[in-house]
Amino acid sequence: MIPVRGLPEVREEDDVAALIADAVELEGGDVVVVAQKVVSKAEGRVVRLDDVKASAQARDLADGEDPRRLEVILGESVRLVRTRPPLVIAETRHGFVCASAGVDASNAPEPDSVVLLPEDPDASAARLRSRLAELTGVDVAVIVSDSFGRAWRQGTTDVAIGCAGLQPLLDLQGRRDATGYELHATVIAVADELAGAAELVRGKLDGVPAAVVRGFGHRGEGTARELVMPPQRDLFR
Amino acid sequence: MIPVRGLPEVREEDDVAALIADAVELEGGDVVVVAQKVVSKAEGRVVRLDDVKASAQARDLADGEDPRRLEVILGESVRLVRTRPPLVIAETRHGFVCASAGVDASNAPEPDSVVLLPEDPDASAARLRSRLAELTGVDVAVIVSDSFGRAWRQGTTDVAIGCAGLQPLLDLQGRRDATGYELHATVIAVADELAGAAELVRGKLDGVPAAVVRGFGHRGEGTARELVMPPQRDLFR
Repeated sequence: MIPVRGLPEVREEDDVAALIADAVELEGGDVVVVAQKVVSKAEGRVVRLDDVKASAQARDLADGEDPRRLEVILGESVRLVRTRPPLVIAETRHGFVCASAGVDASNAPEPDSVVLLPEDPDASAARLRSRLAELTGVDVAVIVSDSFGRAWRQGTTDVAIGCAGLQPLLDLQGRRDATGYELHATVIAVADELAGAAELVRGKLDGVPAAVVRGFGHRGEGTARELVMPPQRDLFR
Repeated sequence: MIPVRGLPEVREEDDVAALIADAVELEGGDVVVVAQKVVSKAEGRVVRLDDVKASAQARDLADGEDPRRLEVILGESVRLVRTRPPLVIAETRHGFVCASAGVDASNAPEPDSVVLLPEDPDASAARLRSRLAELTGVDVAVIVSDSFGRAWRQGTTDVAIGCAGLQPLLDLQGRRDATGYELHATVIAVADELAGAAELVRGKLDGVPAAVVRGFGHRGEGTARELVMPPQRDLFR
C-alpha cells in the first residue's frame, strides 16, 4: 500500500494521471485507487449553490440545512430510497445507493459549492488508466473510490464506483474449499476491498487523494457497474 | 499486509494464537486479522446436522435445501430481515445483519456440519490478543473477520465482527478538511476496511485464515459492537 503524496489541490481540466505519475513510480500490475473527489473536480463536476434554485421538495427535505444542496441531490437521484430530513439515501443514475446521491460539500473547491459524482466513473477510470499507460509505459488498473455508508453498520467504507483493468468481483463459484464443499455463493467484491484498503493509507484530511496497491495480482477487465446488485436479485430495493 | 501461511486445519480447543505466533513474527502495533471460521472451530461452534430436527418454519424456508441447516439459522437469528427461500438475511444476537445469520457450511470440519459465529466475537478477539501478548510479549490489535454481503451491492466484503485493541470507528467529527469545511458526518469504519484488506491477501481457498496489517498506526480500544447501527439511527430495519 503506497500513499500518493504531494499532489496539489486539483482543479478543473487538471491532468490527474500526470500528477499521479509524477508523484509515484508505478509498476505494471499496480492498482491505482483515486478518490472520486479529485476525479470529479478535474472533470468540472462542481455546482455553485448560487446557481441553484430550490424546489418545494428540496425545501421540505432540507430541515434547516441549505435547500439548494438538497435540490442538487434530487437532480442526481433517480430514486429516493430513504429520507430522514435532511438525510437522503438515494439511487444515482449509475445505480449506486448512497447518502446524498454522492453529492458532497466537504473538500469542495469553494465554500458555497458541492461536488457531484463523475458522469461515468468507469469511463473516468478507463481514461486515467489509458493516460497512465501513455505517460509511464506500464499497464495498471484504476479504481475510482468513494466513501459510502452501509445499511445496518456504522461508519463509511470506501468502495469502487469506477473501475478499469480489473475484475471487480472475484467469482469462486464452482470452486471447492479444502473440505470439498462447493463455494456456490462466494463472490468477493475485491474492488471494494481494494478501495477500502487504499482509504486506510490515504486518510481523509491529509491531502492524499490516491494510493497504489502493489502485489495484488489482479487480472481481467471489468467495470464498477458489475458491483451494482441487479434489481431482480435485490432484496432491499 | 502479511498473510499468515502454513497453519494446520484448526480443531476444537486448538490454541489459535499459538499457531499464529509460530507462523509469523509479530511486532507491536500490528493488527492481526483472523477469519471467523477458525475462531469458531477452535471454540467448538460447530453443529452436526444429524443432531438437528427441522421445524415447520425451517422446512418452509428450505426450498429444496437441507431444512436442518435452516433450523440452525433460525436458532442463531433474533429477527428475520428478508427471506427468499432458501436465502435468509437475519439479525444475529450480536446485532449483525447478514446472510444465514452467519451460519456457514463451507470450510466446515466435516461434510454434514455447519459452523456458527462465535458466541461473543469481541471476547474471542480479546482472548486472542491477550494470549498473543503472553506468547510474544508484544501488544497487537485483533480483528475477527467474516464475509458479509451488502444491500444494493454484489459480492461480499470481509468486515469486523470482533475487535480488541483498536478503535473500530475513526471519528473525524468536528475536524476540518483543507477548505475549512467541517466534516460533521465522517466516521470511517476502519476495522471493516482492515478486515477487507486482510481478505485480499488471505484468499478464500488457500488455507490462509489470518493476515497481519503492519504500519496502520491504530490507537485506542473498542469493540465490533460499535459497528452495529443503533436501531434508532437505522433507516433500514
